[in-house]
Amino acid sequence: MKFAFLLYEGMTAMDLIGPHEILSRLPGAESYRVGLNKGSVRTDSGIELLADSTLSEMTEADILLIPGAGTATTLGSFPEILEWVRLIHQKSVWTTSVCTGSLILGAAGVLKGKRATSHWAAIERLEKWGAVPVKERVVEDGKILTAAGVSAGIDMALTLASKLCSDQVAQAMQLAIEYDPRPPFDSGSPEKVSPLVVELLKAKMSAGFENG
Amino acid sequence: MKFAFLLYEGMTAMDLIGPHEILSRLPGAESYRVGLNKGSVRTDSGIELLADSTLSEMTEADILLIPGAGTATTLGSFPEILEWVRLIHQKSVWTTSVCTGSLILGAAGVLKGKRATSHWAAIERLEKWGAVPVKERVVEDGKILTAAGVSAGIDMALTLASKLCSDQVAQAMQLAIEYDPRPPFDSGSPEKVSPLVVELLKAKMSAGFENG
Repeated sequence: MKFAFLLYEGMTAMDLIGPHEILSRLPGAESYRVGLNKGSVRTDSGIELLADSTLSEMTEADILLIPGAGTATTLGSFPEILEWVRLIHQKSVWTTSVCTGSLILGAAGVLKGKRATSHWAAIERLEKWGAVPVKERVVEDGKILTAAGVSAGIDMALTLASKLCSDQVAQAMQLAIEYDPRPPFDSGSPEKVSPLVVELLKAKMSAGFENG
Repeated sequence: MKFAFLLYEGMTAMDLIGPHEILSRLPGAESYRVGLNKGSVRTDSGIELLADSTLSEMTEADILLIPGAGTATTLGSFPEILEWVRLIHQKSVWTTSVCTGSLILGAAGVLKGKRATSHWAAIERLEKWGAVPVKERVVEDGKILTAAGVSAGIDMALTLASKLCSDQVAQAMQLAIEYDPRPPFDSGSPEKVSPLVVELLKAKMSAGFENG
């Protein structure tokens, strides 16, 4: 099982690292961290991750994972990434995204007529690419699995682990990362928080999207 | 607010990235990723992260965060890291760990008589360092905050965000990373899983610890 994790400047580190922690440890997994170039990629929280493969070296993969970013739609200006996404998607067993990574799938043209999700502040933007926005944590349509914002990548990866291996393997992975969540607050989705907080965050994040 | 995130070979990427995604975005946060050397550090899932500061450059910080690893106790063989942990802890406002990062705090001698937690498969090892193991998701004792395995770092970071800023800021961060967890299974802690799975995982992980 060959996994291609896309890395690009300005991406959100946790969108990739959450699923990577689970998927790269599955029995038989062969993981590649694929960038425009090899070497360091600066994420939107400041930490740098390393790409160990390039787009041109990686011409097919069983599983494709696209992380999101506050300014994901700026990727429209990297046609080589969108072209690569289309190429890998052609033969992939699963094509997946976390957070606004689904906008990249959309821009690459692979979500037309498909049900998909994204970060809550960006989900309507999926319509621009002909997708049907669905406000769920993880959305499956054919071989496409999309996750909601950032932390939803963990739930998506466990779902994918059960499909690729078995429920038991997925459960063992959940136990390995001790994923028995106890957030100190219950404010993880917009309907649970004061409208003011939602609007402030949305305005801040949309400014990023608009740059694209 | 100066944050020092320790990076070291063999660490678990998500132990650091989960909290980093939250803490590095707090108002006034200044984040440093501190390694033995600058440059790439290979994590235990294969992805490399970049250290942008060295131990010797970083002589104090308000918040110290120590991630764990399957082989965390091997750090006993890096006395310069333990010495640095002691140094930063002296003046820190908060000293924190995720997963087996607490074993590093223990080895550095800062957990004597303190209540602390760790990954479920390693928690008893805290006694070796004079700590009192507590099976909770996040444990606070004085200025020391320790989190359980891997994903518990997210809950710890939200708790810390509320202490450093306010409940409202922590809640906004939770919403920003859409942390409204919906794991597809309920197998995130050992009492929820078949004893066989627990024993298999524990044996595998303990082999790593024993190398230390």
